[in-house]
Amino acid sequence: VTTKDSFIYIFSGDGKGKTTAALGQAIRARGHGWRVLIVQFIKEAPSGEVESLTKMGVEIFPMGLGFVGAAKDKRSFEEHQQEARRAFDFTRDKVRGGGYDLLILDEINVAVDLGLLEEKEVLKFLKERPKGLNVILTGRKAPKNLIKIANLVTEMKEIKHPFAQGEKSRSGLDY
Amino acid sequence: VTTKDSFIYIFSGDGKGKTTAALGQAIRARGHGWRVLIVQFIKEAPSGEVESLTKMGVEIFPMGLGFVGAAKDKRSFEEHQQEARRAFDFTRDKVRGGGYDLLILDEINVAVDLGLLEEKEVLKFLKERPKGLNVILTGRKAPKNLIKIANLVTEMKEIKHPFAQGEKSRSGLDY
Repeated sequence: VTTKDSFIYIFSGDGKGKTTAALGQAIRARGHGWRVLIVQFIKEAPSGEVESLTKMGVEIFPMGLGFVGAAKDKRSFEEHQQEARRAFDFTRDKVRGGGYDLLILDEINVAVDLGLLEEKEVLKFLKERPKGLNVILTGRKAPKNLIKIANLVTEMKEIKHPFAQGEKSRSGLDY
Repeated sequence: VTTKDSFIYIFSGDGKGKTTAALGQAIRARGHGWRVLIVQFIKEAPSGEVESLTKMGVEIFPMGLGFVGAAKDKRSFEEHQQEARRAFDFTRDKVRGGGYDLLILDEINVAVDLGLLEEKEVLKFLKERPKGLNVILTGRKAPKNLIKIANLVTEMKEIKHPFAQGEKSRSGLDY
């Protein structure tokens, strides 16, 4: 499937629903026979979605070392940076191979915001991407220059969240 | 799979990502072996996601007559109301049958906001739902009393949208 034009979507903000909205887009796209590639920055542990999406023919690669500065985080900034670059190089190679209709760069906004990736190399990648490749970027604090070149931007705004009330994250809903 | 407690999530707001976030939750839940039921209010035409989700073992039922008051809408308000009630009764029956871990009521906020369904009957249903049944409600203009009883609420806020710039909706991305 090749579309004439292609779009850049950004799902940002502090509320729940950014990654899941991107995953929903992946399902929808698959339903139309699109080839979909998902590369997950930051995230490490395989979550519930990986198996389901793989079954549907979506290529999904969790390639992070976990949240930077999280309580259990024992990695140095340099290690996180190395891993983010590895994931980004991997993405470039896969995309160069061609044939994808939708690329989801999960949590890449965070990777750029933290300085794990350079904003300018992400911008360059987006501008030079193959014709017809739609891209979705997710994560908090989407950099302004990415927002500028995006066609659609939604801010997921937290109105109410159980974690704020001391609840723990739950298998099935949160990962 | 039965969980001890269960949550109510609401995805509302005018931005893109409400339904797709709910669909992403469905995939994640399926990945953990949850039984998932999706009833789509308002929406009529089968969209890209239906086939993909069905393949994954998600039960999904589009049960609307299209957007009320849309340009092509030839139905009376009463017809839309009848259809929404039929979908709600269907949901109640399915849920009573039991065994679901996650129920997604897609666009139900809109159905309540338009008066196609009564807010109090939706509240009653949520309060009396089987133990362990997580529920996600999507759609613009979530009624205040639904927000009050929800555990998590995200407002999908439109920052930038191609439709606002005269673009048309696109197969693969928008439906």
